Amino acid sequence: MESSPQFAARMKRVTPSDIMELLKTAGAGSYISFASGLPDPALFPVDELRLASDHVLSTDGGAALQYGPAEGYPPLREWIAKRLNNRGLRVKEKNILITNGSQQALDLAARVYLNDGDAVCIENPTYLAALQIFDSCAAEYRTVSQDDDGMIVDDVERSLSTDCKLLFALPNFQNPTGRTLSAERRKQLAAILDRSGTVLLEDDAYHDLCYDGPTLPPISSLTTIADTLYSSTFSKSIAPGLRVGYLCGPEHVISRLTQLKQIADLHTGSLTQRIVHWYVTEYDLDAQIEKLRAVYRSKRDVMLSALARSMPESVRWTRPAGGMFLWMTLPESIDGRALLGDAMSQGVMFVPGSGFHQNQQGSNTIRLNFVSAPADQIVSGISILAKLIKSRC
Amino acid sequence: MESSPQFAARMKRVTPSDIMELLKTAGAGSYISFASGLPDPALFPVDELRLASDHVLSTDGGAALQYGPAEGYPPLREWIAKRLNNRGLRVKEKNILITNGSQQALDLAARVYLNDGDAVCIENPTYLAALQIFDSCAAEYRTVSQDDDGMIVDDVERSLSTDCKLLFALPNFQNPTGRTLSAERRKQLAAILDRSGTVLLEDDAYHDLCYDGPTLPPISSLTTIADTLYSSTFSKSIAPGLRVGYLCGPEHVISRLTQLKQIADLHTGSLTQRIVHWYVTEYDLDAQIEKLRAVYRSKRDVMLSALARSMPESVRWTRPAGGMFLWMTLPESIDGRALLGDAMSQGVMFVPGSGFHQNQQGSNTIRLNFVSAPADQIVSGISILAKLIKSRC
Repeated sequence: MESSPQFAARMKRVTPSDIMELLKTAGAGSYISFASGLPDPALFPVDELRLASDHVLSTDGGAALQYGPAEGYPPLREWIAKRLNNRGLRVKEKNILITNGSQQALDLAARVYLNDGDAVCIENPTYLAALQIFDSCAAEYRTVSQDDDGMIVDDVERSLSTDCKLLFALPNFQNPTGRTLSAERRKQLAAILDRSGTVLLEDDAYHDLCYDGPTLPPISSLTTIADTLYSSTFSKSIAPGLRVGYLCGPEHVISRLTQLKQIADLHTGSLTQRIVHWYVTEYDLDAQIEKLRAVYRSKRDVMLSALARSMPESVRWTRPAGGMFLWMTLPESIDGRALLGDAMSQGVMFVPGSGFHQNQQGSNTIRLNFVSAPADQIVSGISILAKLIKSRC
Repeated sequence: MESSPQFAARMKRVTPSDIMELLKTAGAGSYISFASGLPDPALFPVDELRLASDHVLSTDGGAALQYGPAEGYPPLREWIAKRLNNRGLRVKEKNILITNGSQQALDLAARVYLNDGDAVCIENPTYLAALQIFDSCAAEYRTVSQDDDGMIVDDVERSLSTDCKLLFALPNFQNPTGRTLSAERRKQLAAILDRSGTVLLEDDAYHDLCYDGPTLPPISSLTTIADTLYSSTFSKSIAPGLRVGYLCGPEHVISRLTQLKQIADLHTGSLTQRIVHWYVTEYDLDAQIEKLRAVYRSKRDVMLSALARSMPESVRWTRPAGGMFLWMTLPESIDGRALLGDAMSQGVMFVPGSGFHQNQQGSNTIRLNFVSAPADQIVSGISILAKLIKSRC
């Protein structure tokens, strides 16, 4: 026999996720976890979804269990299109592709545009699983720095003036930093995109989790010429285990994405799409979102207060206006991964920030999820972290 | 602004599926359809799945709606592993990756192994959506002819003696031909694979839909050295709209496939995996399969009788021992696509066979689904087809 068959070259660029490995560990013990990307399961509308599933299977079981169109369940696509018009996106059903959560939306979008070696402009740091997608496409990176108002626009303009295929942006309550791109910068970015012709991939997974002030318009709603793809999901507002998200874009792009989706897995689940559709039409999604906002806002404030009380002056952190994550910058001498080892031995977990960066930056940063743990655990977990950090300062 | 952004080169190889386009047309009118790949929705265990969903959400709602592990729901993986041991595969939970139906299983398997230009050995004709997957990977093809016992083994040996990365085989009730690979040829193929070191990708989506004789052992169960991936699904035995299938393979390959799955869409739906698991443990899957077999066997016999009564002598067709499809070879002068135009004008649909072939072969072949239409429609549809064919002979 010959030697064992070789994996494809792309597999060299497919590497395990720190976060997923951490989640596995977390499943095995009892930690105060600031590590996960999990929403609080106590807030899932379980009873309503149970009734929705019962209704769908009672009244439309044959179709809910049958194969369906690759684009997704038409009434759900129509509902999403209407909802996005309220966000300023002038779109119709034909502009919507239903995906298995926004992870698949990003993966399909990357694969429809990126050849090996194409440049992608990203915020640094940015969403780790998006980096894994772009890595798997052998992307080259143009990185953009951030301040408290999000991406530095001059950096973007410089990046897009080179040959750059895609700008990946997470303007609302970015994962991992919790930062929000200001209204003024959204306009500036839209103008740059219109001039450059670069494709925008706008990830708005956290859109509904807004705790302070008005929701700002998507960058996609401010462009007039550029091709834009806008992705979001029901994972944060309803529940991630249903795996229902979507991509919104120009019809000719959605058409090509749909062909790729069909090859990838034929279509997103017929039953789960109908459960989501029945839930959003029959129940009060906005009330559910208000409930999430109230609880998560309160948890964020618990964490911010605990940090203010206990952290040494040399530590800085963001004050997210929404989302699930807060970003902490430690003194340069403290390594996030080393700190994690100590923290885990004291029962606290978080995600070191280096994995969200390109080029080994961010070794002194960490990401803290403020929505998963109960409030009392947030207080005690932050207290443990503060003591550990002080002992290293 | 520059010209509109270019799609990735791979998109040149991503083309619409004839079948999916046909299905869209079929949705718009009322046809006697032999075209679809749809199982009969009247046989879905709707009430049991409704109760399963109710149970899962009542007792385990938090986890059923939360993110889950990329590999899939552990109890379902364990159940599948046990089930596959009954098929002769010596595997454990760690050898199973849950996917969104077997379409995703095939897509992930192709992407984990294939570089652009790698050779894939396929049956000619073969499953159209698998060709689309391999096309998207820029595969080169080595084609293998078939007779009533399935793949011609000498053809396979010749193909694998060249530099061939993957053998894609559909040994049970092949889509599109309905043919079954004989027991003797399975052994011969396994020996060839052990010698060549080629990876086997064995698609056993129709395993449970066996109407005559014993179920033969998977090729994967007969190899001793070769790397083999075996895919199957609950789409045919329970319901396709749940989108739950799986891949089974060596642990080091499943581990890499899991990383690719995580990038693709994080994981398969937590709720639907639990619904399937509760259904298979609490209800009687084997009784459900027996019910499917009885109805589908009877429909197959209705179609075979109708064909024997009405078709001219110059037409040949397969006599499938299972599955959903029957394959018809028309006189060489009759083009399947042209026949389809006439048939649709008389209210009958099927899929022309050319799309299942490489190299523009099979223009005089067609695929007939014998499980979707009611028995009386099968009789009248075949009668219409026979008249059309006779008028062209």
